[in-house]
Amino acid sequence: MKEKGSLFSFEGIDGCGKTTQIYGIRDDLLELGYRVEVFREPGGTALGEELRRIVLHRKDFPICERAEVLLYVTSRAQLVREKVFPLLEQGTIVLLDRYADSSVAYQGYGRHLPVEEIIRLNDFAIEKRYPCKTFFIDISVEEAESRLSGKEKDRLEGEEQEFFHRIRLGYLALAKRFSDRFVILDGEQPPDVLRKIILRSVLEVVGHPKLETR
Amino acid sequence: MKEKGSLFSFEGIDGCGKTTQIYGIRDDLLELGYRVEVFREPGGTALGEELRRIVLHRKDFPICERAEVLLYVTSRAQLVREKVFPLLEQGTIVLLDRYADSSVAYQGYGRHLPVEEIIRLNDFAIEKRYPCKTFFIDISVEEAESRLSGKEKDRLEGEEQEFFHRIRLGYLALAKRFSDRFVILDGEQPPDVLRKIILRSVLEVVGHPKLETR
Repeated sequence: MKEKGSLFSFEGIDGCGKTTQIYGIRDDLLELGYRVEVFREPGGTALGEELRRIVLHRKDFPICERAEVLLYVTSRAQLVREKVFPLLEQGTIVLLDRYADSSVAYQGYGRHLPVEEIIRLNDFAIEKRYPCKTFFIDISVEEAESRLSGKEKDRLEGEEQEFFHRIRLGYLALAKRFSDRFVILDGEQPPDVLRKIILRSVLEVVGHPKLETR
Repeated sequence: MKEKGSLFSFEGIDGCGKTTQIYGIRDDLLELGYRVEVFREPGGTALGEELRRIVLHRKDFPICERAEVLLYVTSRAQLVREKVFPLLEQGTIVLLDRYADSSVAYQGYGRHLPVEEIIRLNDFAIEKRYPCKTFFIDISVEEAESRLSGKEKDRLEGEEQEFFHRIRLGYLALAKRFSDRFVILDGEQPPDVLRKIILRSVLEVVGHPKLETR
């Protein structure tokens, strides 16, 4: 059945292939006649891009752990209000390259900030509007490292391997806890196989236009 | 009795005279031989000043209400970690020109965001380190307006009168709820009289050095 606008998030450790998949799925959905928008976090709005520049690229001043997670959450609050909610209202499918779960996985499990408090920060920022489905693209930390080697590293990618192990386990814990919306995907299978699986899962929510309108 | 470092916040609607009082009290305490530091919110750190610039002076892009309060809370998280906690640890008296209660009064009561959720955001950001005393300098909205007329207005000062009425009532509600730390002061009395009252109240907490060390 086709809902009026649907929200999907893509999650995983850096290098898992989220961004490739999102743009693939967007193209598939556009071809099927859907209206689709993609946003990345942090960013997606003028405020969000300002905060992205600060949190990922300003290395000339310190940012403590709690301020870091709050910067991500602030960007998210602006994104949902300014872009996501109005688009959903108009019936557009919204694909998010990272969303609320990233803060819980990275700053909660990764940096040992209190997980329940970060979930509450998210609840406040997004007014409890969680995605229909969250695609967690799971790859090993070793695979992520080999994919990212050579790429210029930002603040997060410069962290040590153990940090990414904790994040991956955090995502798995979230997937278990929020199993109604989480879809765990093997990110080490070929990208075109993965893309078909994700598309099928998206169409289960939004409906296949050919079956309904022709 | 003299505590090791003490935290005081100064609150009130714009134009109430907080800043004048803080610098007066700082001078009095310095003269008495104390180490004192003053910070203003948002700001007080490199990150905080970046966020201050965004939240008060960037009018070229929208900032939704939840993002606005989160920007203040982010600045606060950085301020306490980077400056306030280490200074308190060293025995310094810290005076804050606005702190956690400002977010509750302005964005909670003023903008109708959920008060309890904003208190929880503060709890997260400041790790529940509330001031020994919070000086709420109370003036009428009419008096504030006449004091501020002619001054260049920033984002908040441009709001309508009703907004400031709600903020003032919000502060009074907080003062009642957190009566253990709130001190309500009549901000329409002469500044030098007010200054003596505040100094006496600060010395009740930190102790008078002449009585202890000479």
